[in-house]
Amino acid sequence: MPEKTYKRPWVALKHRLNKNDLQTVGQFLASLPASAKARAISGLDGETTQKLLKSLSPKQAAELFKVLPQEQASGLLEHLEAPEAAAIMDQLPKNLRADILNDVSLSDSKAILDTMSPEKAQQTRQILAFPENTAGGIMSGEYLAFTETMTIAEVLHDLEQNSVKYADYNVQYAYIVNDQKKIVGVLQMRDLLLKPRDTKISTIMKPEPLKVPVRSSLESLIDTFDGCSYVGVPVVDEYDRLLGVARRLDVLEAAGERDKDTYLKASGIVGGDELRSMPTIKRSKRRLSWLGVNIVLNIMAASVITFYQETLSAVIVLAAVLPIISDMSGCAGNQAVAVSIRELTLGLTKPNDILRVFWKEFSVGMINSVVLGVVLGTLAFLWKGNIYLGLVVGFALAINTLVGVVFGGLLPLVLKKMDKDPALASGLILTTVTDMFGFFLTLSFATMMLPHLN
Amino acid sequence: MPEKTYKRPWVALKHRLNKNDLQTVGQFLASLPASAKARAISGLDGETTQKLLKSLSPKQAAELFKVLPQEQASGLLEHLEAPEAAAIMDQLPKNLRADILNDVSLSDSKAILDTMSPEKAQQTRQILAFPENTAGGIMSGEYLAFTETMTIAEVLHDLEQNSVKYADYNVQYAYIVNDQKKIVGVLQMRDLLLKPRDTKISTIMKPEPLKVPVRSSLESLIDTFDGCSYVGVPVVDEYDRLLGVARRLDVLEAAGERDKDTYLKASGIVGGDELRSMPTIKRSKRRLSWLGVNIVLNIMAASVITFYQETLSAVIVLAAVLPIISDMSGCAGNQAVAVSIRELTLGLTKPNDILRVFWKEFSVGMINSVVLGVVLGTLAFLWKGNIYLGLVVGFALAINTLVGVVFGGLLPLVLKKMDKDPALASGLILTTVTDMFGFFLTLSFATMMLPHLN
Repeated sequence: MPEKTYKRPWVALKHRLNKNDLQTVGQFLASLPASAKARAISGLDGETTQKLLKSLSPKQAAELFKVLPQEQASGLLEHLEAPEAAAIMDQLPKNLRADILNDVSLSDSKAILDTMSPEKAQQTRQILAFPENTAGGIMSGEYLAFTETMTIAEVLHDLEQNSVKYADYNVQYAYIVNDQKKIVGVLQMRDLLLKPRDTKISTIMKPEPLKVPVRSSLESLIDTFDGCSYVGVPVVDEYDRLLGVARRLDVLEAAGERDKDTYLKASGIVGGDELRSMPTIKRSKRRLSWLGVNIVLNIMAASVITFYQETLSAVIVLAAVLPIISDMSGCAGNQAVAVSIRELTLGLTKPNDILRVFWKEFSVGMINSVVLGVVLGTLAFLWKGNIYLGLVVGFALAINTLVGVVFGGLLPLVLKKMDKDPALASGLILTTVTDMFGFFLTLSFATMMLPHLN
Repeated sequence: MPEKTYKRPWVALKHRLNKNDLQTVGQFLASLPASAKARAISGLDGETTQKLLKSLSPKQAAELFKVLPQEQASGLLEHLEAPEAAAIMDQLPKNLRADILNDVSLSDSKAILDTMSPEKAQQTRQILAFPENTAGGIMSGEYLAFTETMTIAEVLHDLEQNSVKYADYNVQYAYIVNDQKKIVGVLQMRDLLLKPRDTKISTIMKPEPLKVPVRSSLESLIDTFDGCSYVGVPVVDEYDRLLGVARRLDVLEAAGERDKDTYLKASGIVGGDELRSMPTIKRSKRRLSWLGVNIVLNIMAASVITFYQETLSAVIVLAAVLPIISDMSGCAGNQAVAVSIRELTLGLTKPNDILRVFWKEFSVGMINSVVLGVVLGTLAFLWKGNIYLGLVVGFALAINTLVGVVFGGLLPLVLKKMDKDPALASGLILTTVTDMFGFFLTLSFATMMLPHLN
């Protein structure tokens, strides 16, 4: 593929926008590979972004939205009035519409839906009504369904009539429903060619097809696809009525989104993905909301230190030791958090497996805490030539690390059981505990040993 | 789907293994949904795992390997002798073979390949020869290719002859090559049905198909699929010879792996995924390798504190303030790291975009550092009723946070440019800098203000 590369594609784009040569803007954008389109737009300021969107037809803008990362597309909508945004949304496939609106503020998305074509708005509302990581939120409306009483001839006629509409569906199966829309079978498309045209499709369909309830979790969908080789599985309501198709590709994509979110949340990026093309104030506010919680927890933890001012002033070197102990135990605990979150995601661990996780983390925690304790304790001893200082430091680090590892391993299970998001809260809670407990252990051991430390 | 749920599926599995009722072990495993299989095996100790694997036929074991998470499957191989492992590998599809061996130690994978069937070993070696996240490492060998001189009748004959082998391929396209194996066109399978049987396929193929070089990066593959609607794209060598097919599904899966790896690496889980079913010593060693680097950096940073013992003993409350300042700046910087890694992954930022990232982070960093500095400075002032303490603490936190945010934003770009893995190294380097600089700023400001602090 011949790929035009621009070091700074937004410069070329800005240049065309500033010349008010709006004709060529669309052409230029269309000539870029998908990622360069995204980069070009990232590099624009708010005003120029608005100018760009106004220079594109709704159809051109929709083509652009299709290849941009979803969060970026959602961000672009914020630069538009509702009617302009609605005109673009009307041009998009319905699942993408729902995905993009999911990342827009509720009031904005309402205003956009109200000005969209009523039929399309209705479709989109239906998808948005289901929670994001469930079969209902993931399923696609692009599938073929025929009534069981139809003949092969009738099905082929329908396929021919709608060939343009079906062209993108890319399906090898059709679902067969009865007159109550209940799914009763699945039909391999190629079987349509091998039987007489007046055959009823109910006689060539495979009855009792695999299906998933609309409330199925992402985990159970992944499980379903792991256990079969289908490209898509029909999604049904409580009465087995066909609502849509969950496609393997979309399930994988949703799983990817969730994994990515885990990293961002664990790093303190909250409220959805952050892109640098978003307004500074919005980025700043979102980051601060997490830092605000963090500073409160930090102050709580550090307040432990204030109870031991006498010990500290007697053994001032402890001030250098405290951050090492709290940080190392926090890091060791965070490793256990990451393994638990990963195993929960893979379904290898369930929130009730507390006992098993406890022993698995206890065994690793014992080894690592002894190693770290001996290393830091020995260094402290060598530094000041005081064996008691070595003992205080070594024991405090070892015990605090063991606590951090075991607590870090269990915390995500407990949070999950309480229906809280482990990725978001685990790190904050863990480091507060390891800080507090680390300061407490070091300073209370030191207080006990005080006569030997000077 | 009727799903048998077991709270602790390994208990039922162990029970059957201990009765030596090996017949029913295979049946029991087969009856479990994919994720319960994985959980059942996670819950076994090393010895029982070995017993399980020996009780399964290579074919049964292969069926199991197909549904387990890749890392778990790789882990199971370590419980087997090379010939046993090779017998299982022979039963797996070649791409899965390569994926599983990728996670096994080099010497083990060599021994396994040497005892596999020579033809299959050769196929696998070919895949392993390509780097993991490139078109070569991702491509599948399951595709249809025909020579341009063939007629429709010849193609249909071949399809019929090989219908069993092709059944799993799930393809709607075939690739057309010339006698040097150079790709010259692509053929939509359904077009085979609409023309006379003696038509040369070269006349109905679409010439000059989209193709990707075997060294293409994962990023450029994602880009290619974003820009088209194909399910697969042919992969070619430098002479345009067809080597395989990169499928959208596999590219998505590889992207998911990479996102997951980012989180694990940033949390200090190194050397590949860690599952709790791995041997304790292996888990402990891997975690320690990262903690070992961390403790050295931590000691380096904390050594700054030892230069200011006089200031500290004069103003002992500073000991409680130091961990807060270093931790808060580290967290604020880590947010910027996460956004940079995310934007690099999405292709929205390139390693050369230093200037743009600098300004974007500087603006957010300015706001957030002022807010945090004012908050902590005010609290310090209220705590001790000393305005100078408030000033020292506030300024130190504000400046250190700004440094952390800007440095954190730029660091992943620089590491990427140096071909280092940003996910692995960014956090370690960042917190060392924010610790060191935070201690330095607080204590040197305090030293300057010393007369006013008591």
